[in-house]
Amino acid sequence: MRIGVFDSGVGGLTVMRSLYKSSLFSEIIYFGDTARVPYGSKDKNTIIRYSLEAVEFFKNFNIELLVVACNSVSASAIPQMREEANFPIIGVVEAGVLALKNSLVKIDDNILVIGTKTTISSNIYQRLLGDLGFCNIEAIETGLFVPIVEEGIFKGKVLDATMEYYFQNLKRHPKYIILGCTHFPLIASAIEEYFTKQGQKPILIHSGDAIMEYLKNIYPNLREQDTQTKFFASENPNKLKEIAKQWLNL
Amino acid sequence: MRIGVFDSGVGGLTVMRSLYKSSLFSEIIYFGDTARVPYGSKDKNTIIRYSLEAVEFFKNFNIELLVVACNSVSASAIPQMREEANFPIIGVVEAGVLALKNSLVKIDDNILVIGTKTTISSNIYQRLLGDLGFCNIEAIETGLFVPIVEEGIFKGKVLDATMEYYFQNLKRHPKYIILGCTHFPLIASAIEEYFTKQGQKPILIHSGDAIMEYLKNIYPNLREQDTQTKFFASENPNKLKEIAKQWLNL
Repeated sequence: MRIGVFDSGVGGLTVMRSLYKSSLFSEIIYFGDTARVPYGSKDKNTIIRYSLEAVEFFKNFNIELLVVACNSVSASAIPQMREEANFPIIGVVEAGVLALKNSLVKIDDNILVIGTKTTISSNIYQRLLGDLGFCNIEAIETGLFVPIVEEGIFKGKVLDATMEYYFQNLKRHPKYIILGCTHFPLIASAIEEYFTKQGQKPILIHSGDAIMEYLKNIYPNLREQDTQTKFFASENPNKLKEIAKQWLNL
Repeated sequence: MRIGVFDSGVGGLTVMRSLYKSSLFSEIIYFGDTARVPYGSKDKNTIIRYSLEAVEFFKNFNIELLVVACNSVSASAIPQMREEANFPIIGVVEAGVLALKNSLVKIDDNILVIGTKTTISSNIYQRLLGDLGFCNIEAIETGLFVPIVEEGIFKGKVLDATMEYYFQNLKRHPKYIILGCTHFPLIASAIEEYFTKQGQKPILIHSGDAIMEYLKNIYPNLREQDTQTKFFASENPNKLKEIAKQWLNL
């Protein structure tokens, strides 16, 4: 099975890694719109326009499924993309929510969702979690985590001060935290440590692992095989390939 | 005299404010490429491509001068823009350097330049300052200041930790600091305070004021008059107009 992975930049490689490590696909084609990253602070209409361009791009590759790794795209553009595409499209948001549903979470457990401005203000996580009956949901914008990760900061004083800035006024201590942005798995241990210091250790939901679990459910016939990879970027493709080599251990 | 101001986003309004407050222009037309901001982490070729699109845009307005408020564009794309334009173009980088030259700075004074990745790695400030004979120049990338300002943070723990992160390893205490990014005037007082605590109060060079001083020199016949304004953005023009109203007191 040949699949595509679309992200606004290199962050989606955290999702691609989960897919690649499964060895369940014949080929994975990654496209990162690195020339126009980040999407997280852009208008919904702009995100839709850019995402439709990505659909056109993937039409050249005869893929059987497109995974949208970017939460901002998942939250804003998937219905419009499906209208234009000749392949199925699934996004990390739905997958993350379903992963939570399949875990041992209880209806009144405290769930914290963190993401960019676009993702959180779209209310998509809040709505989907609400649809499943969860009632103690807090969702906050933590946009600064993206440039901090891109700066190569994964722990230390800058991150500590920024976590304090965002988390100090939370109403409830979270039992589950949905990492609603592809960059956030890279600071997962810092986030876990922050909350563990204040009480119970939270359970973090990672988009890549969540979507892989979901794919296993809806494609039960996938078998282990060698996985080919291709990487494309709207800017600096060599830098993307370099990061991919490190992260995916290619 | 009708002039244009080009920036990658809303940050250039700090430059526009200096021009507007002078009351020396008949009309100022601002264009912010808000759909593709930030430029500071993008490739040189991408920045050139976007900047040429801005030149085309300004050709519609019969302007007599284009001021490039964005340091990343000033550092990367001005020669290419001049080839396409039918009006003169000046950038904040040259203006900032000339402002320093016209101040009381001594050849061996410590000069610190801060800016985005594109601006600093272009070496343009270092080269121009070196051309003027200055020998104690330190230039560092402080890219995180941009999203921090955009988050609306102008002081406090997040900014303090980030300043410490960037400035702790400086070789010399700066006497002059060039704010090499349009966003930085908004945290000028925090930066001044940080360095004052550690010794002498530094002198900060602000792009907008610098470029206005420069224009007064090269256009000595400008007279006070009412200034009309127009604002355009590639995304969310109403948000830009709102911010402009506040900042420019329109």
